[in-house]
Amino acid sequence: MSINVLVWGENVHERENEIVREIYPEGMHTAIARQIAADGDLKVSTAVLQEPEHGLSEERLAGTDVLVWWGHKAHRQVDDAIVERVAKRVWEGMGLIVLHSGHFSKIFKRLMGTPCALKWREAGERERLWVVNPGHPIARGLPAFFELEYEEMYGEPFSVPEPMETVFISWFQGGEVFRSGLTYRRGAGNIFYFRPGHETYPTYHDATVGQVLRNAVRWAHNPAPAYTAVHEAPNVPVEKAPEKIVERGPKLHAPGEQGYR
Amino acid sequence: MSINVLVWGENVHERENEIVREIYPEGMHTAIARQIAADGDLKVSTAVLQEPEHGLSEERLAGTDVLVWWGHKAHRQVDDAIVERVAKRVWEGMGLIVLHSGHFSKIFKRLMGTPCALKWREAGERERLWVVNPGHPIARGLPAFFELEYEEMYGEPFSVPEPMETVFISWFQGGEVFRSGLTYRRGAGNIFYFRPGHETYPTYHDATVGQVLRNAVRWAHNPAPAYTAVHEAPNVPVEKAPEKIVERGPKLHAPGEQGYR
Amino acid sequence: MSINVLVWGENVHERENEIVREIYPEGMHTAIARQIAADGDLKVSTAVLQEPEHGLSEERLAGTDVLVWWGHKAHRQVDDAIVERVAKRVWEGMGLIVLHSGHFSKIFKRLMGTPCALKWREAGERERLWVVNPGHPIARGLPAFFELEYEEMYGEPFSVPEPMETVFISWFQGGEVFRSGLTYRRGAGNIFYFRPGHETYPTYHDATVGQVLRNAVRWAHNPAPAYTAVHEAPNVPVEKAPEKIVERGPKLHAPGEQGYR
Amino acid sequence: MSINVLVWGENVHERENEIVREIYPEGMHTAIARQIAADGDLKVSTAVLQEPEHGLSEERLAGTDVLVWWGHKAHRQVDDAIVERVAKRVWEGMGLIVLHSGHFSKIFKRLMGTPCALKWREAGERERLWVVNPGHPIARGLPAFFELEYEEMYGEPFSVPEPMETVFISWFQGGEVFRSGLTYRRGAGNIFYFRPGHETYPTYHDATVGQVLRNAVRWAHNPAPAYTAVHEAPNVPVEKAPEKIVERGPKLHAPGEQGYR
Repeated sequence: MSINVLVWGENVHERENEIVREIYPEGMHTAIARQIAADGDLKVSTAVLQEPEHGLSEERLAGTDVLVWWGHKAHRQVDDAIVERVAKRVWEGMGLIVLHSGHFSKIFKRLMGTPCALKWREAGERERLWVVNPGHPIARGLPAFFELEYEEMYGEPFSVPEPMETVFISWFQGGEVFRSGLTYRRGAGNIFYFRPGHETYPTYHDATVGQVLRNAVRWAHNPAPAYTAVHEAPNVPVEKAPEKIVERGPKLHAPGEQGYR
Repeated sequence: MSINVLVWGENVHERENEIVREIYPEGMHTAIARQIAADGDLKVSTAVLQEPEHGLSEERLAGTDVLVWWGHKAHRQVDDAIVERVAKRVWEGMGLIVLHSGHFSKIFKRLMGTPCALKWREAGERERLWVVNPGHPIARGLPAFFELEYEEMYGEPFSVPEPMETVFISWFQGGEVFRSGLTYRRGAGNIFYFRPGHETYPTYHDATVGQVLRNAVRWAHNPAPAYTAVHEAPNVPVEKAPEKIVERGPKLHAPGEQGYR
Repeated sequence: MSINVLVWGENVHERENEIVREIYPEGMHTAIARQIAADGDLKVSTAVLQEPEHGLSEERLAGTDVLVWWGHKAHRQVDDAIVERVAKRVWEGMGLIVLHSGHFSKIFKRLMGTPCALKWREAGERERLWVVNPGHPIARGLPAFFELEYEEMYGEPFSVPEPMETVFISWFQGGEVFRSGLTYRRGAGNIFYFRPGHETYPTYHDATVGQVLRNAVRWAHNPAPAYTAVHEAPNVPVEKAPEKIVERGPKLHAPGEQGYR
Repeated sequence: MSINVLVWGENVHERENEIVREIYPEGMHTAIARQIAADGDLKVSTAVLQEPEHGLSEERLAGTDVLVWWGHKAHRQVDDAIVERVAKRVWEGMGLIVLHSGHFSKIFKRLMGTPCALKWREAGERERLWVVNPGHPIARGLPAFFELEYEEMYGEPFSVPEPMETVFISWFQGGEVFRSGLTYRRGAGNIFYFRPGHETYPTYHDATVGQVLRNAVRWAHNPAPAYTAVHEAPNVPVEKAPEKIVERGPKLHAPGEQGYR
């Protein structure tokens, strides 16, 4: 069974900034997509901010098993209605992998319900990612740690909810630490936040980063049919109660009336 | 040390519906506030939807340690800016207790990042709340279970994130179950969802419910100073890194520039 | 890829008790194994208490991906050394599914680190299991709830650690509730506790129970190589530190010496 | 209300090793106890391995609200029956703070149900502890990070269960990271693991470490009466079921008979 992966890229710095363009001449989303597509059963396509509906139409999302998100400069330009559409698909079971500066994307903040803030420093320092949960599917095939010689520092506290699992913790040359791989489930959707990926460094050309991305896609994939009932708040009439009961006491709602939202 | 509690009530059905007015002639918020104020060190005041800023001004929230929220019919009338203001205070450390139909309030959905949907039936059936975590502060002084002879049914699945702790689970006469007491932490704020409290029944006059409310207020109270840094994403310049490093590689940001949001 | 499943049965009441023998003439382990083996890629075998090493030799466990455990009357007869052997394999990545009265098995208590106690009543009452996490792999293909017309009651509080996820909650006719499906990870091993299965009722002949068992086996399976390093506490000599450091200060240990355990 | 704290020390290296004796001439337990006793409402006493019952009689434990544990060389000399006694008190609500090399103590492994292994290096390197959860009571009054100039390195993976909350993460000069402050609840007992404290360095004379210890004692304290029912598995006879039911179907147990353990 193949997994349909959609890599979403903001696609701004790749076009506007000479350094980024040189590293990612076809865009960061293309580099990320290539890493994932190295496994033949992962069917990968891309979408960017500048497309109609940011390339995230209802149809497109309905056919997506796992969405990978990279954004930074243009978080505010993402349409609120599209964010809500993506959130709904996540609750229904679409996997979501949020990368690096995506910590401040509307979709990640929407799903976390917290500020998702952190400290940062852009100094090309060494990052060493330690696997703290070696039995986790996202750590499959990885060494005890891996290094990125040039990376932006992200420092704790990272104001996200306590995760389901902590998979990676980063050590930075300048003295900080960061929880670099965190898992969450929201509705039927599996969410993974993965820290590395500043656009002025060649992080998404790194082989180990590629392995993490592929592992994360497989972990995030929920093969169940879309759990669309997650949004509904159905009334269960007395005659359909699993156990026979007799209605009693006063009521607000007339029979068949919807609940308040 | 006293704890400043603010009980927020929607205050709609108490005025519009004869049944509710009879049970709560001074409003549900007043009944809830009285239960909490039975402990003298809990300093309780109330606010309602109809006040300017819904009674939730910056000043009011700044002086609140724990906010208790009951709403149902008028969720949509709560101003989005006020919801955001409340969320910020929660992240900074204000406790939040969300009651019953507040599961669909804007503030609860905002903080959970999920639909918060459930099944329901208004039939005046018996609810029995079991304490599944008897050592938890919110269960202090409670029996193994307590009953509410007339309540609305809420049934699983309740589409919220996996909680930090499950404190209560309800049994319903009609055959359903529900996780009726759930704890979360978001930023520095402790959040407790407590299920009972349909407006056509005298739930907030029940003594055991009062005990739960007081316990929950004490548990939710975070005595630390407001953690205002939770919103900030400060740059740490190279010269202020805890370990001496030398900047290298290309950069996006000029010195002193803010990060993107 | 096939999954090697080993169903372990205590195999006492099936031989000693007329009622149980009638329901499970070939033993409960055989009935459980048949349910799981209904999916052809699940390769199932069985082992019982009365075999040498309880059928759980090092070799047998090394070849097992997921172990399913049913025990009740003879928990104390399970050898402590075998319990430790099973625990080690779980930490290394073998899945473990603990059924019903296995809540008091040595292996479950060993892995939970808590008493694992609960209330009970043997009255052939109706149990209704609600799916509280419909997107979870263990709930795949299940209806909103399923019923077992005759079951033993287990009631909260269930003194286990807060789970990673709650998948099922049971409603009992006599008025109790119970968290009937709980997931844990310990080391690289996935653990699922599933409540139903009292030996005087035909629970393991139920089709939906069979679906849960198969789902649980697939969920618990960790395809990674055995994580044998989970037991080790290696010294990292100064010359092998990822960053160059100079040893300083006083030491307890001579070079190459083992740590204390 | 005062809190009764018992600091337990192994008390071996302080007597046998010249370096340790010089730093802690009255024993490590005494230094730890002094730090905690700096807050007048914390009533602190000490106990050591060499006392009868290791100073942990039933009476002593019954009067203890929070137990602090430091051990290293003599883990194996702690009597198994005493370990079980301590575990029982934790489940009943006694707080437990496990320090440094106590990760391999029998009591910690017993309560975690995992190997609790880690990497280590004794090189007197710098450790920097980052507060990752600044709103947590254990972080009260702490700066964003604090440093210990000379410490033993502990490196991930730390094979413990996923914690309830991660409070601290350590950065080490040699390039490793470690989750240095982890909370758990087991039964009614709050458990905190705190990493620093190698015996050849003056860690327990550090003022910030003292603040953490006092904070942790307050957090771990459960003022509820001992939850002794945590060990019991009572039968609920049919006539005492909360809802009226009629017994039916076959049974294993005669009326009044105990369940199997």
